[in-house]
Amino acid sequence: MLRPMRVELTPGTVALVAGGPGDPDLLTLAACRALEQADVVLYDYLAPDVAGLVRSGTELIAVGKRPRSTDATSQDDINALLVAQAKAGRRVVRLKGGDNYVFGRGGEEWLHCADAGVPVIVIPGVTSATSAPAFAGIPVTHRSLSQGFTVVSGHAAPGHATSTIDWRALARSGTTLVLLMGVKNLAAIAAELRDGGLSSDTPAAIVSSAFGETASVVRGTLATIADQAVSAGVRPPSIVVIGAVAGLDLS
Amino acid sequence: MLRPMRVELTPGTVALVAGGPGDPDLLTLAACRALEQADVVLYDYLAPDVAGLVRSGTELIAVGKRPRSTDATSQDDINALLVAQAKAGRRVVRLKGGDNYVFGRGGEEWLHCADAGVPVIVIPGVTSATSAPAFAGIPVTHRSLSQGFTVVSGHAAPGHATSTIDWRALARSGTTLVLLMGVKNLAAIAAELRDGGLSSDTPAAIVSSAFGETASVVRGTLATIADQAVSAGVRPPSIVVIGAVAGLDLS
Repeated sequence: MLRPMRVELTPGTVALVAGGPGDPDLLTLAACRALEQADVVLYDYLAPDVAGLVRSGTELIAVGKRPRSTDATSQDDINALLVAQAKAGRRVVRLKGGDNYVFGRGGEEWLHCADAGVPVIVIPGVTSATSAPAFAGIPVTHRSLSQGFTVVSGHAAPGHATSTIDWRALARSGTTLVLLMGVKNLAAIAAELRDGGLSSDTPAAIVSSAFGETASVVRGTLATIADQAVSAGVRPPSIVVIGAVAGLDLS
Repeated sequence: MLRPMRVELTPGTVALVAGGPGDPDLLTLAACRALEQADVVLYDYLAPDVAGLVRSGTELIAVGKRPRSTDATSQDDINALLVAQAKAGRRVVRLKGGDNYVFGRGGEEWLHCADAGVPVIVIPGVTSATSAPAFAGIPVTHRSLSQGFTVVSGHAAPGHATSTIDWRALARSGTTLVLLMGVKNLAAIAAELRDGGLSSDTPAAIVSSAFGETASVVRGTLATIADQAVSAGVRPPSIVVIGAVAGLDLS
């Protein structure tokens, strides 16, 4: 049902709430209202600290997912927990880092709740795909440099059976490329983009822990960025920007 | 300079503030803090109504840009006004609909201010590119359907001298396509995507005035969507989504 945003979290409802890139100041007012009403918050490790934004007595449950950790809750378990909490009559917030519908498994959680008869509201927010570059002084579009941008998961390497991305087509697309979860496979991705015709001297930048106290930026080119990531010991969460705009530093 | 977000708008500073997709509840806390401190707000016609969020006495100046209108302020005039207001010692907020760095000319405004010695802070926000689809129940990514999305301006038609986008490459990219300002050239864009190999029965949807009282969604396929836009009398602001996810309706 289409309707303007009015956040009223009734008992038995799940709100999929975008937590933004990590700084609580980048939560939306709508997210804050949902959090104020929540009986329970299920949050990921990249979600901002919202302890100061919930009522006394609100239960906060960490459900992962930290990369390569063994203690993360599986997606099936998260789905089941969302439904169980809602069926118990609680007001449930599912808080993600970034936006639930940008690589956040929000669609799966929505479908699982709907199948169980649990009402869901969706509160969009600030995606890291645009805000982490902005933090580093990089606009993803800029007149004369870029008329579009592509946000893609680097989780599946080019050519891997599970990858549905045509990286060589992206190399020719004329858009800024923004890789999420792209550091592990960066060498393979950069090689594929070069093979697809993207110039080796295309500017590239890696933004790590944007908005955090340990934030850092590595700048180079498509030819150098993968080696630089290794030398600099770049760690998740990191966003890779490839394209002429990555040569800007509006900071 | 990299630093966590601390919004302190000192006199003589310009804040480029993302207004989000139109609903004031989708402003960030950081945006609200900047607005509370502002002496003057220069806002576009798509920016949310923030009259209730500023101090008494704050000056609100409309600077366009309404499509095809004759009363919009030119970008040069906006740039000059930002600098003049800041040089007069005021705390200046430049409020855009969506995000200033996603087709918002924010980079140009930043550079113009910097050239004039005016300090600028950037407050990223909720882009319509992901939130308008979410409003219509469409996640731009979804496991098994899409591992990425491309946001592109449809302002320049395919093949136009000013277009730097390779639409046929995008047709093969495997990403969800999100067109901003894409309705006017939708027939030409859809034809180019089909010529590039994107199947005619690819789901497509147009989301108009997302989060507004007059919100509407038109659903069809790559083959039908341009004609449907005409029949339905679709008007800006509208977002076009093309890809398997446009067949979802999580609402």
